Amino acid sequence: MKGDIIFTTDTAAAIDDAERRFAPDKILCLIPQSCGRELISHMGLTADYIFIDDAETSKCLAQLEKIWMEMLSRGFTRKSLLINIGGGVTTDMGGFAAACYMRGIEYINVPTTLLAMVDASAGGKTAVDFMGIKNIIGAFRLPYVTVIDPGFLESLPDEQLLSGFAEMLKHALLQSSAGLATMLRIDPLGLATEEWLPLIRGSVEYKRRIVSEDPYENGLRRILNLGHTAGHAFEALAMQRGTLVTHGAAVAQGIITALVLSVMCQEFPTQIMRQVSTYIINTFRAIPFGCNDYEYLLSIMHHDKKNKGTATVSFTLLSAPGQPIAGRELTDDEIKTALDITQDLLS
Amino acid sequence: MKGDIIFTTDTAAAIDDAERRFAPDKILCLIPQSCGRELISHMGLTADYIFIDDAETSKCLAQLEKIWMEMLSRGFTRKSLLINIGGGVTTDMGGFAAACYMRGIEYINVPTTLLAMVDASAGGKTAVDFMGIKNIIGAFRLPYVTVIDPGFLESLPDEQLLSGFAEMLKHALLQSSAGLATMLRIDPLGLATEEWLPLIRGSVEYKRRIVSEDPYENGLRRILNLGHTAGHAFEALAMQRGTLVTHGAAVAQGIITALVLSVMCQEFPTQIMRQVSTYIINTFRAIPFGCNDYEYLLSIMHHDKKNKGTATVSFTLLSAPGQPIAGRELTDDEIKTALDITQDLLS
Repeated sequence: MKGDIIFTTDTAAAIDDAERRFAPDKILCLIPQSCGRELISHMGLTADYIFIDDAETSKCLAQLEKIWMEMLSRGFTRKSLLINIGGGVTTDMGGFAAACYMRGIEYINVPTTLLAMVDASAGGKTAVDFMGIKNIIGAFRLPYVTVIDPGFLESLPDEQLLSGFAEMLKHALLQSSAGLATMLRIDPLGLATEEWLPLIRGSVEYKRRIVSEDPYENGLRRILNLGHTAGHAFEALAMQRGTLVTHGAAVAQGIITALVLSVMCQEFPTQIMRQVSTYIINTFRAIPFGCNDYEYLLSIMHHDKKNKGTATVSFTLLSAPGQPIAGRELTDDEIKTALDITQDLLS
Repeated sequence: MKGDIIFTTDTAAAIDDAERRFAPDKILCLIPQSCGRELISHMGLTADYIFIDDAETSKCLAQLEKIWMEMLSRGFTRKSLLINIGGGVTTDMGGFAAACYMRGIEYINVPTTLLAMVDASAGGKTAVDFMGIKNIIGAFRLPYVTVIDPGFLESLPDEQLLSGFAEMLKHALLQSSAGLATMLRIDPLGLATEEWLPLIRGSVEYKRRIVSEDPYENGLRRILNLGHTAGHAFEALAMQRGTLVTHGAAVAQGIITALVLSVMCQEFPTQIMRQVSTYIINTFRAIPFGCNDYEYLLSIMHHDKKNKGTATVSFTLLSAPGQPIAGRELTDDEIKTALDITQDLLS
């Protein structure tokens, strides 16, 4: 079925199977230059491929045009298939290339990072960045199939693994107390491949359920924004300082701020907030900030595309694990208080 | 309702009404440079606007980027509204700009040419050209509302009026014998504004019905391709020679070829084919071609995005007025015979 997610430890066989079912007239794989040849030999890939640059700065219209030119020069039709093998940059950009070519052709995503597996793999969000704004130009289009193979995680750097793990932690918080408790017992850097599979499956299936109830992000899906409002601001701050941080480390820290706000405004249990914050602080690298950064952090939050140019900033909060509230409008003063407490927790 | 088409002689009031219902936080109008100031004063437009270049060669990614930059610099959000006022280039490109900005915001189309009213106004097809290929990059997205005001036709050049009329003739052929008979009695260059309104409404409502049954062009909608397979080839031939022809004139001539093929392969009544051909020849300017052009014409037909790289070319034919058959695969020999007969009819 269109939009299916296949969990496997044999990617090549899963791709072959999807190809047999769809019977495309032409196939092209997008593969990041950085991990190209290794990936191809690992997978025993036989299809035609091109290398792309998967730096976030290359997730742009210029590279999109190159992909479209390749599709055109190979005579891609409405029955052709694009296969995006890589991290979120590759799957987002490749998905958007497929979404617009002839007003939409089929594509397969093969996420090779944990973040792309649990975050970018479900929901059909495709996009490129434009004028320095992330994912501002894009489309909703589900892949024909998504192939998730935890074997790719074996060669993934620790920081990248943690980055994806932050999204899994977010899903657990949104889902239930039991799910959260399981996550808090895990050492993500000490898991074996076969231990990842059920965890990824649980996380992806949760996200998929939310997305299927709100495919165009008009309501419910906004709960998935948990940790991202402050998280994007921390990420921007780090980038402005020239510090490299992963998306996940920023989101994890954003979760702390969101939980502090949840305690302040939604009677989220203080003890659980402390427990999750401690786990995050022990697991992720902190992004330091001070009171002098508040104006900058707030300006980023006000520019987030989820906010409608209002005086307040919209957050997803929780009244308890598994009980999210989306679109909670908060004032600058409330946010500053939460940033004070976040600073205290981090120090 | 989303996707509504409003027939009116007071565009400004219709736009105001749609704006009141949608309540956007920001509005931007796209208006072709060529008819800018006149149009604005004619409409009593008060919203913010920018001029765009509406030549077919400017329906490209470079101009799309400029539009996105304008949207960004004005702080467009998911609650902002784009209003595209102009011909098909403006509504297609503006619609695509809206379809991809933040993965889709609302837009209003105000077609000012007959072609855009009857063809581009229904169906939610948006696109830009790329690498010389028309509409190859695009999306399906319905406008919030389409405002059709035949008052714009008063200042439309005859050739442009005829170009739209060809699509109306096509819709009549697809629809019924009675509808066709009505069209064949009309002198499109002699109609008053109030006489256009019911004709446009009938044509648009027909197209809308077809499109609503097949929004993503997987089946039924392909019947709307009548006259376009050969028509696009005639259009390309004229362009290659540096002759300016309208899309409609090319489609009208393509309808002759399609009807000849319908007589050959679907027992379409010869007499009606002759009647329609005579009407087209008396109404539209012919695009001359000879046997030496057959290879070129066929190569264009084989490259049409509706064809899947097969040995045959897919046509929409008719077994009678109102009885279309989509996806009829024809050989080069059959098409050459039909081109011979088309030449005879034109001479």
